[in-house]
Amino acid sequence: MAMKVALLGCGVVGAEVVRLINEQSAELGARVGAPLEIGGVAVRRVGGTRGTGLDPELFTTDAMGLVTRPDIDLVVEVVGGIEPARSLILAAVKSGKSVVTANKALLAEDGATILTAAREAGVDVYYEAAVAGAIPLLRPLRDSLAGDRVNRVLGIVNGTTNFILDRMDAMGAGFAESLEEAQSLGYAEADPTADVEGFDAAAKAAILARLAFHTQQVTAADVHREGITEVSAGDIASARAMGCVVKLLAICQRSADGDAVGVRVHPVMLPREHPLANVNEAYNAVFVEAESAGRLMFYGAGAGGTPTASAVLGDVVAVARNRLAATSAGEGGDDTGMPVHPMGKTVTRYHIALDVADRPGVLARVADVFAGNGVSIKNVRQEGHGEDAQLVLVSHQAPDAALGATVEELRGLDMVRSVASVMRVEAFADQA
Amino acid sequence: MAMKVALLGCGVVGAEVVRLINEQSAELGARVGAPLEIGGVAVRRVGGTRGTGLDPELFTTDAMGLVTRPDIDLVVEVVGGIEPARSLILAAVKSGKSVVTANKALLAEDGATILTAAREAGVDVYYEAAVAGAIPLLRPLRDSLAGDRVNRVLGIVNGTTNFILDRMDAMGAGFAESLEEAQSLGYAEADPTADVEGFDAAAKAAILARLAFHTQQVTAADVHREGITEVSAGDIASARAMGCVVKLLAICQRSADGDAVGVRVHPVMLPREHPLANVNEAYNAVFVEAESAGRLMFYGAGAGGTPTASAVLGDVVAVARNRLAATSAGEGGDDTGMPVHPMGKTVTRYHIALDVADRPGVLARVADVFAGNGVSIKNVRQEGHGEDAQLVLVSHQAPDAALGATVEELRGLDMVRSVASVMRVEAFADQA
Repeated sequence: MAMKVALLGCGVVGAEVVRLINEQSAELGARVGAPLEIGGVAVRRVGGTRGTGLDPELFTTDAMGLVTRPDIDLVVEVVGGIEPARSLILAAVKSGKSVVTANKALLAEDGATILTAAREAGVDVYYEAAVAGAIPLLRPLRDSLAGDRVNRVLGIVNGTTNFILDRMDAMGAGFAESLEEAQSLGYAEADPTADVEGFDAAAKAAILARLAFHTQQVTAADVHREGITEVSAGDIASARAMGCVVKLLAICQRSADGDAVGVRVHPVMLPREHPLANVNEAYNAVFVEAESAGRLMFYGAGAGGTPTASAVLGDVVAVARNRLAATSAGEGGDDTGMPVHPMGKTVTRYHIALDVADRPGVLARVADVFAGNGVSIKNVRQEGHGEDAQLVLVSHQAPDAALGATVEELRGLDMVRSVASVMRVEAFADQA
Repeated sequence: MAMKVALLGCGVVGAEVVRLINEQSAELGARVGAPLEIGGVAVRRVGGTRGTGLDPELFTTDAMGLVTRPDIDLVVEVVGGIEPARSLILAAVKSGKSVVTANKALLAEDGATILTAAREAGVDVYYEAAVAGAIPLLRPLRDSLAGDRVNRVLGIVNGTTNFILDRMDAMGAGFAESLEEAQSLGYAEADPTADVEGFDAAAKAAILARLAFHTQQVTAADVHREGITEVSAGDIASARAMGCVVKLLAICQRSADGDAVGVRVHPVMLPREHPLANVNEAYNAVFVEAESAGRLMFYGAGAGGTPTASAVLGDVVAVARNRLAATSAGEGGDDTGMPVHPMGKTVTRYHIALDVADRPGVLARVADVFAGNGVSIKNVRQEGHGEDAQLVLVSHQAPDAALGATVEELRGLDMVRSVASVMRVEAFADQA
């Protein structure tokens, strides 16, 4: 008895999913325990089979009809966006179909509603491809670490920005130039906003935080988000002088008292010895610190039609097996309700480069400002002379609000000509 | 209705498993969907509770009685060794209990028998902790990549040897000195044979090959095995001169015609840019090359009581969930029967350092020997003078048998004073 799969969307990822299902049908049938069959493909405009080799009769514009059709077992949603994907997924779930999706925006915004509906209907909604492309990450977090306690997750989850920062580091180039190079090579879109402003990474951070900390209370809106548009060649050089690289990281961290989770995306200076520092080009990696398992890292291709399709297919096999066994994962049912705590309370460390007047007493005045905000200085060096005089400081760890207040006060000092650069530093020296 | 867990063994890992089950009983109960309860602990000598805080009445020397007791649902085997573990696991399975084990030696030798018995009884045997400690690796290979095709697996799967090689690289020290340091720090045992001779890595390679290539035809005896006892400070220096590091790798690779799998463990020169090259100290990492997913890497702590216990617990949760749903994974049922092909046919590359007579014509004669064996030379450099004259060559890729024959013939040339070093090179330059 075949498992009938309906596809929503037949673009780069959808067409590749179809191709893999056809090409590996024997192996997939053996691994699932029943043959997989494409029952229908919903597209916006019928005409042509998108190189899938499928019977043109399978294509339809009636997506809602397809997801509620009685003979369909499983729906693969690869159109993306909030609507109509949300309505279609909810309709599929309420009709007793399991769903596999790659839709990070939808899950980040409304994952709790969808997972609740899935639990009530006794079906699965799986979404490995939504966070880190091909990397099996969500299933290990959800399943293998089910008996463990996650304390922190650091992730390079956007290949576009990682590629750009990697080029800036390799070429000493500025952001605009490296963005152009990324666009010409196909690593960045014509409108790169979602990637370079950190929206893509923030959606993934929300999904990661919910899974890692067993809470349904995090949405993309809760994530403190900064992209890489303000990262300069000077920042990269400063980082290198400190033995660090600059990465755009998604960071999800249990608060010190364990009662809340901080979720943020922003550029970070990271020591070169850190396993994440050597994740180059458009690769992604997620570094997990768990109570018993210790340090773990998952690395792989974050995007691309074929890697994403492979993650979708892994979920299709899992969900199909669950259906054959008349069971489902019941994800989201263990909601601890742990809330997100505000960015101001997140404990972190700042690297600050100040263009200063070249005269005595500047360091003393600057140190005063730090002390007044309750922030200690870890190290400081003075660079350049005259017009180029610069003070470069790394703080000790302190709440982000105190660090931000320190920077604002420094900006107001008349011996500080400008704040040339501010960046958070993670996993540094005595930090774990 | 509680899930009753029986433990076989209560050493470092077993005691930690008990501690975690007690400490996280609420979270585990929520994630499984039923409370977990320790039903009994089998040990060799009763007396004391090994710091577990358990009721002493739970301890017994009657392991066989415990695993066949009607009220037991799940058996955790953490004694290790072939017998009595094999008999106990088979008895448990035949009595309808699911099993979680960390026993790599047993699985490498007799995994096929155990998995077949489990499928026939409709129960699970899970063994994440047997290969790479805390790293969720087997479940992703088995499940997330179920819809994919693995071409090659490269693994650092033995923390002892990775630590020793890391120290040799950092300190310029020889093997014996670095082994002593490892022993004094607790990274190597008093009798380090299983680790430094590659037996531990070979068992893990066999298990990995079976899972990655869906074949039950690989046992530890099939694995070409070389340890690190012959690796010298000179080898490490040669590697560095080539921009490489030396790692002990487990390599499982689909043959060119796709019909067989090569499985081997031996020291390798690996380029420093490779993600595996930066896996230091006693960490493990497994690098997977899959058809659709592309390059993936899983990194984490390979050993240690707590990391291993966390992997065991992840499996306990999965297996308990399956039982509640009256289902099982049916692993091993998709045996392609793909055999192991002999080491001689494995295509690889050699780095060879020859102490040679310092006179003209040596290179020509050496190049002749290569040509005679059908092996091309990729690059060569001449080092030193007089007594120190050395020829250092890197071959192109060729079958291992031809490369080995080349080395033996070189050894016999009278202008070659000795073969100072021979090591395989992987993932180099034009190699993927």
